[in-house]
Amino acid sequence: MKQYQGYFIDLDGTVYRGKERIPAAARFIKRLQEHQREILFVTNNSTRSPKEVAANLRTNHDINVTAANVYTSAMATADYLVQHAGQKRRVYVIGERGLKDALLNKGMQLTDQDPDYVVVGLDRNVTYEQFKIATLCIRAGAVFIGTNGDTNLPSEEGMIPSAGALVELVRYATQQEPIMIGKPQKTIVEMALKASGLKKSEVLMVGDNYQTDVQAGINTGVDTLLVYTGLSKPADIEHAEIKPTYTVKTLDEWNV
Amino acid sequence: MKQYQGYFIDLDGTVYRGKERIPAAARFIKRLQEHQREILFVTNNSTRSPKEVAANLRTNHDINVTAANVYTSAMATADYLVQHAGQKRRVYVIGERGLKDALLNKGMQLTDQDPDYVVVGLDRNVTYEQFKIATLCIRAGAVFIGTNGDTNLPSEEGMIPSAGALVELVRYATQQEPIMIGKPQKTIVEMALKASGLKKSEVLMVGDNYQTDVQAGINTGVDTLLVYTGLSKPADIEHAEIKPTYTVKTLDEWNV
Repeated sequence: MKQYQGYFIDLDGTVYRGKERIPAAARFIKRLQEHQREILFVTNNSTRSPKEVAANLRTNHDINVTAANVYTSAMATADYLVQHAGQKRRVYVIGERGLKDALLNKGMQLTDQDPDYVVVGLDRNVTYEQFKIATLCIRAGAVFIGTNGDTNLPSEEGMIPSAGALVELVRYATQQEPIMIGKPQKTIVEMALKASGLKKSEVLMVGDNYQTDVQAGINTGVDTLLVYTGLSKPADIEHAEIKPTYTVKTLDEWNV
Repeated sequence: MKQYQGYFIDLDGTVYRGKERIPAAARFIKRLQEHQREILFVTNNSTRSPKEVAANLRTNHDINVTAANVYTSAMATADYLVQHAGQKRRVYVIGERGLKDALLNKGMQLTDQDPDYVVVGLDRNVTYEQFKIATLCIRAGAVFIGTNGDTNLPSEEGMIPSAGALVELVRYATQQEPIMIGKPQKTIVEMALKASGLKKSEVLMVGDNYQTDVQAGINTGVDTLLVYTGLSKPADIEHAEIKPTYTVKTLDEWNV
């Protein structure tokens, strides 16, 4: 079995299940750290800052990492814009603090007047007014970007609408296809590779979801490890045209 | 050319263009009235009451009709529920006054607790909270109904998101297909037939939009008249598999 220098690891379903711990995942991260592997948690969640994500892992899941170990779809969106936007840095955002801060940190200017880009992520306080502005700006020529296509966010109330649902409203009202950044798109993986300085061949994508985590690896040409502690079941990939590079029941099985 | 006793007539693009009058349409309505034809304005707009729609036609477009001449997707939704709901009358609504009043008028109980139905129409003050409730209720088993699939509402600011965009968010977040009521679905036409007591063969659907007005007629088996004063152009229907029964440049050409 090949050795990987870098691990791009999903969070929910892979490292924890909501508030529930996955002990094998904590042991896996510890073994990666003992072997000096590079760890990057690559998550579609754009609402939290890397600092908050790391604090949650340390406090609630016994996983000793820092903000530098976290790469969100918000950061990938900001890095994508830096790469493509040139002097066009006016951005209208539907999103929470995590997304807005990621864009501000990379020198974007947030505005609702004549933006060059409209970025839509999850905003749990979104209103019609914001959808209206996004729609009018895109119809006036702004480039439409979606942080990720997730259908739902697990919450204590149940499966509530996530970023993809908000993107879908704007897609329907503009009849324009967005540029999508998060998994299963390759953009987030390419931006994570660039941010980490790792090569495709050095990295293993680890996740519980064939449709997002594994597909993102396949789309980018990065090897994949599907772990059956979350969404995907063995039956789900039986008829998949391209299988994950590896599958395990729990991350205890993986030899780092 | 066949004579029709009843006319189901679209509004925007057919009878007026936003605030702009279409004089041939006013003359057409007058001729229908002189010949004692039955007139029903059948509109996907669910935000206004029939009274408001009629008042607008009288005040701004010189068309002398009453609320009894108006049939909205909100009324069709209420009539559909009366027909299907039986004792299940608990409804969670995303929508404006026109939709809520139509449902209340037919004995529905509006609630956000364990509804039997979730009805989504245009609400220009909708918030994430409402989308969340709709999503959780549908995921818990409520039947999902959309008033209509319109992408946009023309406004003074431009083409803003309409009912279909809001429905689309909920569809994506629930991964469930809604029952749609408005044009091009046949439900609104069937409910209008029932409400008016007219037979399919007695009615002509009149509208400017092949995709909604004419398709609704085709789907229901009602003859159609496409008028080129709005959205559809002759080139749009050149390759249509099923053509409108009749086409005219303006409604002056139509012999009532």
